[in-house]
Amino acid sequence: MAAERFEDRLGVVAERAKSLVCVGLDPDPRRIPAHLGALDDPAAAIIAFNRAIIDATSDLVSAYKPNFAFYLPYGAAGIDALLRTRAMIPAHIPVVLDCKVTDLGETARAYARAFFAEWGFDAITVSPYMGEDALEPYFAYEGKGVLVLCKTSNLGSGDFQDIEVAGDSLLYQVVADRTTVWRERYRASIGLVVGATFPDQLADVRRRCPEQPILLPGVGSQAGDVDAAVRAGVDSRGGNLMVSSSRSIIYAGDGPDFADMARSATNALRDRVNESLVAS
Amino acid sequence: MAAERFEDRLGVVAERAKSLVCVGLDPDPRRIPAHLGALDDPAAAIIAFNRAIIDATSDLVSAYKPNFAFYLPYGAAGIDALLRTRAMIPAHIPVVLDCKVTDLGETARAYARAFFAEWGFDAITVSPYMGEDALEPYFAYEGKGVLVLCKTSNLGSGDFQDIEVAGDSLLYQVVADRTTVWRERYRASIGLVVGATFPDQLADVRRRCPEQPILLPGVGSQAGDVDAAVRAGVDSRGGNLMVSSSRSIIYAGDGPDFADMARSATNALRDRVNESLVAS
Repeated sequence: MAAERFEDRLGVVAERAKSLVCVGLDPDPRRIPAHLGALDDPAAAIIAFNRAIIDATSDLVSAYKPNFAFYLPYGAAGIDALLRTRAMIPAHIPVVLDCKVTDLGETARAYARAFFAEWGFDAITVSPYMGEDALEPYFAYEGKGVLVLCKTSNLGSGDFQDIEVAGDSLLYQVVADRTTVWRERYRASIGLVVGATFPDQLADVRRRCPEQPILLPGVGSQAGDVDAAVRAGVDSRGGNLMVSSSRSIIYAGDGPDFADMARSATNALRDRVNESLVAS
Repeated sequence: MAAERFEDRLGVVAERAKSLVCVGLDPDPRRIPAHLGALDDPAAAIIAFNRAIIDATSDLVSAYKPNFAFYLPYGAAGIDALLRTRAMIPAHIPVVLDCKVTDLGETARAYARAFFAEWGFDAITVSPYMGEDALEPYFAYEGKGVLVLCKTSNLGSGDFQDIEVAGDSLLYQVVADRTTVWRERYRASIGLVVGATFPDQLADVRRRCPEQPILLPGVGSQAGDVDAAVRAGVDSRGGNLMVSSSRSIIYAGDGPDFADMARSATNALRDRVNESLVAS
């Protein structure tokens, strides 16, 4: 039997939880509630923090997304915390490792093996700059999601992504179009990353890629307009979108009730996203 | 006192060793000599393997370059092996972590803190797709090297890098030119990654970026023409180039004498590079 596709698993969980929310697990010891002792033992505090956030939100989300960077400053203990975090997420919920990797040949195969086979993530983010052959090793993992950076949420994303290329397109449009070709060619779960801060470009990408999952960072702390972004980003059935929020959920509170506060913030975002869909 | 710039440190070591060779520390347990027991305990074997390679080659190189991917399949033990490897390299030799990262804001700062401040690497490779503001956090580390992917060595690198952009340039040329602007703006050690497999494009990048360090992968296993690439890649003083080779050096032998074989292969590449320079 073929492995279930990433976007199908995502859809099932989104339907069950009535939620497009993806919670970003980006722990920062300077912001983790003091009673968890992050200054003394950051890796242990990260594990306790993530466990509380996951326990408090797992019925309200369609996915989780730890960002690799936040686990690295603690060396081996940080990786251990990342892998324990992966293991504590209920098995039916897809987990995206936000690592934005790119490399070629044997090296790409080593990344793919680590992230998919050894560490058990369901999807990763990748950078397109090196081209198709550098991404092939990720596409080869049946059922796993590969989310290609397209139009990112940062202010300066236009430096290269908005460059006009011959034929009157912008570079991010070329990337979006190329992913639809790859999707056919490899029969792989290839999606896109588009920032909520650029709703017009998001609508454009959704038109070009009607069936692909889109990871939407940039709501919350980065203050993108949730309504406009959600309406622009969903597919024709109102899904296939991961509305990703990290800091505005996981740091909603900084006291002993931080997990309850995170639950409230997740619920509020879920409701707001669902209202955007009803209104559209 | 200002921190010494990455390219200056590189130049001093290259001069002392009379070598532009950068050895890639990309351990693969399937290829590590069997007597090191890589199948039983890969992380311990990686440490022993790297120690032997470094001991056998450290007077013949100007830099080392571990690729992040090869350490990840072993989880926390792999990161521990990477950090031990960093620590066992003689302090005067610059070490590049080949990680090709990109991310924004707090996340980029977490990567920079991990790779530069906590892990002690002297330079990293980065992907340009997200733009200048996403790279700023790396530029902010005084003296550390930031090597921007420009024209990579893989066959498919042209998919995006050779796209013609308005104004009659190719994308990799725009990236190269932009790094010279950033270098002035941030007074940072900003270099480039250009594959030895594309000597004409390398010559073009060197013309555009006369003073920046260039990391040159793709000699050896990837079979680029060493002579052409070296002549195209050095600066006006015959340096500022890291001729990077991994598999053809570290797997030159697979018996108990593997470190001697690695030394011979390093020596042979050093001589060949130096002959290319004399002949040019």
